[in-house]
Amino acid sequence: MKYPSAHIIAIGSELLHGGRVDSNSLFIADVLAQCGVEVKQKAAIGDHPEEIRSLLVSSAKRVEVIVTTGGLGSTLDDCTREAFAAAFGRKLRLRQKALEMVRAQLHKRGRPVTPLIARQALLPAGATILDNSVGTAPGFYLQVGKTHLFILPGVPREAREMARVHIPVLLHKKLMSNGRLFWTHSFNTFGIAETDVQGHLMPLLKNYPSIRIGLLASTKGVKVTLSCWRIEKSGRPGSKRLGSFPEGTELGKHIQSVLGPWLFAEGEEEIEEVVGRLLASRSFTLAVAESCTGGLVTHRLTEIPGSSAYVDRGIVSYSNQAKQQLLGVRPSVLRQFGAVSLQVAQAMATGIKKGSGVDIGLSITGIAGPGGGSKSKPVGMVCMAIDGPWGAQARQFQFWGNRSEIKFRSSQAALNLVRGYIVNGEK
Amino acid sequence: MKYPSAHIIAIGSELLHGGRVDSNSLFIADVLAQCGVEVKQKAAIGDHPEEIRSLLVSSAKRVEVIVTTGGLGSTLDDCTREAFAAAFGRKLRLRQKALEMVRAQLHKRGRPVTPLIARQALLPAGATILDNSVGTAPGFYLQVGKTHLFILPGVPREAREMARVHIPVLLHKKLMSNGRLFWTHSFNTFGIAETDVQGHLMPLLKNYPSIRIGLLASTKGVKVTLSCWRIEKSGRPGSKRLGSFPEGTELGKHIQSVLGPWLFAEGEEEIEEVVGRLLASRSFTLAVAESCTGGLVTHRLTEIPGSSAYVDRGIVSYSNQAKQQLLGVRPSVLRQFGAVSLQVAQAMATGIKKGSGVDIGLSITGIAGPGGGSKSKPVGMVCMAIDGPWGAQARQFQFWGNRSEIKFRSSQAALNLVRGYIVNGEK
Repeated sequence: MKYPSAHIIAIGSELLHGGRVDSNSLFIADVLAQCGVEVKQKAAIGDHPEEIRSLLVSSAKRVEVIVTTGGLGSTLDDCTREAFAAAFGRKLRLRQKALEMVRAQLHKRGRPVTPLIARQALLPAGATILDNSVGTAPGFYLQVGKTHLFILPGVPREAREMARVHIPVLLHKKLMSNGRLFWTHSFNTFGIAETDVQGHLMPLLKNYPSIRIGLLASTKGVKVTLSCWRIEKSGRPGSKRLGSFPEGTELGKHIQSVLGPWLFAEGEEEIEEVVGRLLASRSFTLAVAESCTGGLVTHRLTEIPGSSAYVDRGIVSYSNQAKQQLLGVRPSVLRQFGAVSLQVAQAMATGIKKGSGVDIGLSITGIAGPGGGSKSKPVGMVCMAIDGPWGAQARQFQFWGNRSEIKFRSSQAALNLVRGYIVNGEK
Repeated sequence: MKYPSAHIIAIGSELLHGGRVDSNSLFIADVLAQCGVEVKQKAAIGDHPEEIRSLLVSSAKRVEVIVTTGGLGSTLDDCTREAFAAAFGRKLRLRQKALEMVRAQLHKRGRPVTPLIARQALLPAGATILDNSVGTAPGFYLQVGKTHLFILPGVPREAREMARVHIPVLLHKKLMSNGRLFWTHSFNTFGIAETDVQGHLMPLLKNYPSIRIGLLASTKGVKVTLSCWRIEKSGRPGSKRLGSFPEGTELGKHIQSVLGPWLFAEGEEEIEEVVGRLLASRSFTLAVAESCTGGLVTHRLTEIPGSSAYVDRGIVSYSNQAKQQLLGVRPSVLRQFGAVSLQVAQAMATGIKKGSGVDIGLSITGIAGPGGGSKSKPVGMVCMAIDGPWGAQARQFQFWGNRSEIKFRSSQAALNLVRGYIVNGEK
C-alpha cells in the first residue's frame, strides 16, 4: 500500500537571495515523521503570489500533506494568504477569532492593532485557525481533496511551536497512516573523525539492512542518527525510540561499546545539558576562566534554565593583566611558558577555583586566530585545565577551522572535559 | 523582454530527514545573480531516480537555468547521473576525460581507481565535463532546449568552487542577459518593530517602483534589504551595490534619515563589528560585566579578529558574591535595590571600569527566565549601564521570548548601547 508523503514549502524572497537558509523544515520533517508521514520534497520560493499559487496546486496533486512556512506577516510583501485563496478558490474573510488572537498577542507587547496588522486575521473561508501562542500571525489548516495543508508563519520559534502543537493532533484525527512508525535514535560523539565513526559502524550495520544510518559532522562533533520505518498492526502512528524494539536495543548496545570513548550523549541532549545535569545532581558549583573562547563556554552553560544553581561565575581574562589580577596567575609563569601553555591553563583553573570557592574550576587558553600563531604555537592550539575534588589535570588540543569554529570546538572540548572529569572521577 | 530565471535543486536524502540543510544554494544564487539570472525556486529532494527525473523535467519547462548539487558520488545511492539520463533521453557513457580527472584526484590522495569510483566518469553523451579541482566527482553541463543545466557535486567546498569557476563562463557564452545587473543594499536596525519600519519606508518607496524591499525581523533587529534588476547598455552582467546608482544613492539618504535613530549598520556588518571598529579607531579599551547574558556579549565581541586589541576582560558575575568580590558592588545596594536594578547595573559598570582601568565599562543584569520573574520584575526585564569618558548612564529594557532569545536581545541592546555612547558622546 501507499503511505502518506509530504512537501514542505518555505516562503520568503530572503530565502532565494537574502543569504538565508530555511531551517524550519528540519523540525517540521521530524514532526511529520512522528505522524508516519515521509517528506518527499522541500522547496523555497519568493513572496510572489503566482509562484506560490502554482506550487501549491502542483504539490497538492502529488502528496497527502503540505506544510508551508512564511508569508503570513502583516507587511505588504506577505502574500501567502492571498496565494492560497487563489490556489484553491477560497475567499479570504476577516475571522473574528483570529483577530482576537492577534489583539491578545499585541496586547502582551503593549502595541495596538493597526489596519496593517489586522491583515493577519484575513483567512480562507472554512479554514481551521491555528493558534500562535508565541507570535501575532495565526496559521491555518484546510483539507483540499485528499491533501492536508498546514499554513504556518516563518519565524522559527512560532513555526516550531505551532507544528509541534497542531500537526500531530490534526493528522491523527484526519489521516490514518496504518500503524506506520518512524524509529529514530541518535548518538552524539566528540573527538573522532566522521570516516572513523563510519569505519566502526559499517560492520555492525551489515546485520540491520532495514536501518538507515546518517552521519552529521559539525563543530559539535559527529552525530550518528539511525532510523527506519516499521509497521505495527497494533501501533498508532507515532515515533518510537530505536532502542525500544529488539534489534534497536541490541544494535544500540553494540554502538555504545564501539563509540564509548567518544560518546557524550544520546538523543538530542547537548553537551552543556549533560554537564549541567551532572553538576546539579551532585550539587557541584563551577567557575570558568576563559581566554580564547572569550565567554562562549560560560554563555553555553548559562543557556540552560536553572544554570544559576551551579554556575557561580565566569572570567574572560583576555589580557595578561586580567589573568594576574583576577586569577592570580604569576607573571613569572606567563613569562616562562607564555599565555597559551598547560602551565598557565593550570594556574587559571586553580586560581578561579580558589578565588571563587567553587567545587570545580575550568580554564581555556589558546590561539583562535587568524593572527597570533607561530611555528611552535600555531593557530588552533588550545590548552585547557580543570581543578576539583579529584585533583587537577590539563590537556592540549590542536583544532582547525576559522576563528569562530576554533572557539566553538574549544568550548565543546572544554565542556566534554568537565563531563569526563566527573564521570571518570567517580569510577 | 523576459529575463532568465533559475531553479536550484539540492539532491540527497539526508536533506529531507538527516537534520541537514542545503547551504550550497546560498552562493549558487549569488553566482547566478552576478550573471543576471534570478533564482525563482530552490528545492531539496532525496536520492530517488524517479523523483529527480520528474523534477528535472518539470523545471526544464519553466526556467532557463537549472543548477543541481549532490548525488554524483561513487556510492550506490548516488543516482543523479542516471536520473538526468532518463529525464532527457541521454545515454550514459564512460568518458575518458572524466576518468582521467577522477584518477588524478585519487592519485593526490594515494588511492586507486575502484570500479565503484569509476562510476563517477559515467556521464551523459554530449555533456560538457566540468572539472572538479578539489574533489573526485566531475560535474557536467548540458543545454536541453532553451534550458542550461549545471550538474554539480554536493560537497560544499567542491560545489562552491565549481559554481564560481564554470557557471559565469558558460552562461556568458551561451546566454545573453543583456547587461542586466542585480543591485542590492541592506540597512540594519535595532529597537524598532517590523511594521513601524514598513510604516516609515512605504511612503518613500512609492517613488521607486522598480526597487523591491525585503524586511527580516530577528533577535538582531529588523534588516531592510532593497534590491532591483537594472539594464545597463554598457554594463556586462554583474552585481553592484544599490548605492552606486543615482536613485539608489538618493533613496539611501532618505532611508538613513527616517531610520536614523535605529540604524546601526549598512550592508552585512554586524553590531559587534561596528562596536569593534569604533573602539579600535579610537584606541579605546572595553571591559564587560555580565549577569543574565552569561558571557554572550564578550563572546560576540571576541568573535571579531583583532578584538584582543580592545577587549580587556569580561566578568560573568552570576552570583551576588561574584558581583561583590569582582566588581565591588556594595551588599547594601544589592539588598536595597536587588541584583536586577539600574543601581546595581551602574555599580557593575563603574566597578569593572575602575578595576580594569579600561576606557569604557559595560554591564548587563536582568532576568532571562524562564524562572526568577516577579510582578515588579518580570522575566525579560534587563538593566544595562555604561561608564566611560562621557560619564555614566543606565537604561532599562523589557524584552520578550525564551531564555535564549532574551539573552541574545540583551546582548544586541548592550552592544548598541556602546555604539550610541561613542557616536553621541562625540557630537
